[in-house]
Amino acid sequence: MARKIGSSGPQTEAAIHKAGLRLIYRHGFAAASLQHLAAEVGIQKSSIYNHIESKQDLLFQIVKGHMDDLLHAADRDLPTEDSSPSERLEAFVHFHVLYHAERSEEMFVINSELRSLDPENLAYILGLRARYEDKLSTILRDGERVGKFKIMDARVATFGILAMLSSVGTWFKSAGRLSKEEVAAMFSDMVLRSIIG
Amino acid sequence: MARKIGSSGPQTEAAIHKAGLRLIYRHGFAAASLQHLAAEVGIQKSSIYNHIESKQDLLFQIVKGHMDDLLHAADRDLPTEDSSPSERLEAFVHFHVLYHAERSEEMFVINSELRSLDPENLAYILGLRARYEDKLSTILRDGERVGKFKIMDARVATFGILAMLSSVGTWFKSAGRLSKEEVAAMFSDMVLRSIIG
Repeated sequence: MARKIGSSGPQTEAAIHKAGLRLIYRHGFAAASLQHLAAEVGIQKSSIYNHIESKQDLLFQIVKGHMDDLLHAADRDLPTEDSSPSERLEAFVHFHVLYHAERSEEMFVINSELRSLDPENLAYILGLRARYEDKLSTILRDGERVGKFKIMDARVATFGILAMLSSVGTWFKSAGRLSKEEVAAMFSDMVLRSIIG
Repeated sequence: MARKIGSSGPQTEAAIHKAGLRLIYRHGFAAASLQHLAAEVGIQKSSIYNHIESKQDLLFQIVKGHMDDLLHAADRDLPTEDSSPSERLEAFVHFHVLYHAERSEEMFVINSELRSLDPENLAYILGLRARYEDKLSTILRDGERVGKFKIMDARVATFGILAMLSSVGTWFKSAGRLSKEEVAAMFSDMVLRSIIG
């Protein structure tokens, strides 16, 4: 059981999110209990409600937190539209692979528990996800417009490329034979060749 | 509730697998109950044990059934090594996309509930999965050997390509703007370009 950390403040909230993620990852949303969560964090179950309204709210906060962080990092790290589409695509591939290679539990929960979000929460999260997907689609369409990329369908290409890149979350091991930078370079090579006209 | 179909015979077993898949898809393995499963199938809970030993056994049978069917179909439908690596790769892409485009629930359960398999069952399933992955890796290595493909790492390329193709299970809609054949053609184009030397 985790060390007791008190029942209020942003530290507790972060601990609740972290333990919540872990519990949902292990047992699935339906089987995860707030009772168990409180025990993991080392606070009373009633104190949990100072931080989250419900188990549904916990899931929403976890998924929203991940998407907000991802969008923030992408806005900060990705090159502007001054760069060429190829440079922007290469940067996007590296960013996405490096960001996701060591967030396998978060990615798993986000992908597998969208089904457990209430309709309103789901719509909000899908909106954030669409904003992220649009970053890649925009690069692909810009490259097409200047005659650099040849793409049959930018939406399908976006879904396919994101799935390829995100797969690092399921098989990449930081102690494995390849570094995440090497994997990013390999995928960057494949993705660029797959669409350069 | 489903129509009563009696409590023995292969028809009941098929009904148990189908209802089990649906329940695990909706609630997750940990929260799915055999009580609920029996009600869905329309038999007594005790009769379930004529067909499965436990909930763990049910999950294993569902996942194993999917992998056996997939391997059988691949052995039947994919071209032999007489064909060129490019032809074999194109055929593999089409096969994988068409096979998975309309099996989203099965794919979801198989990918998300590997964590719920007992170690021995998991090892068996990962063995079947490796057999399937090897079909693609072999095509990639054969193409590399004859100087047709240029690949940085056949394992990474295999994982990336399979993830790209399998993504149809999460976003393809049979009533959508594209047919699964069109999606297969798009992915085939991208995959071939991504590795042809």
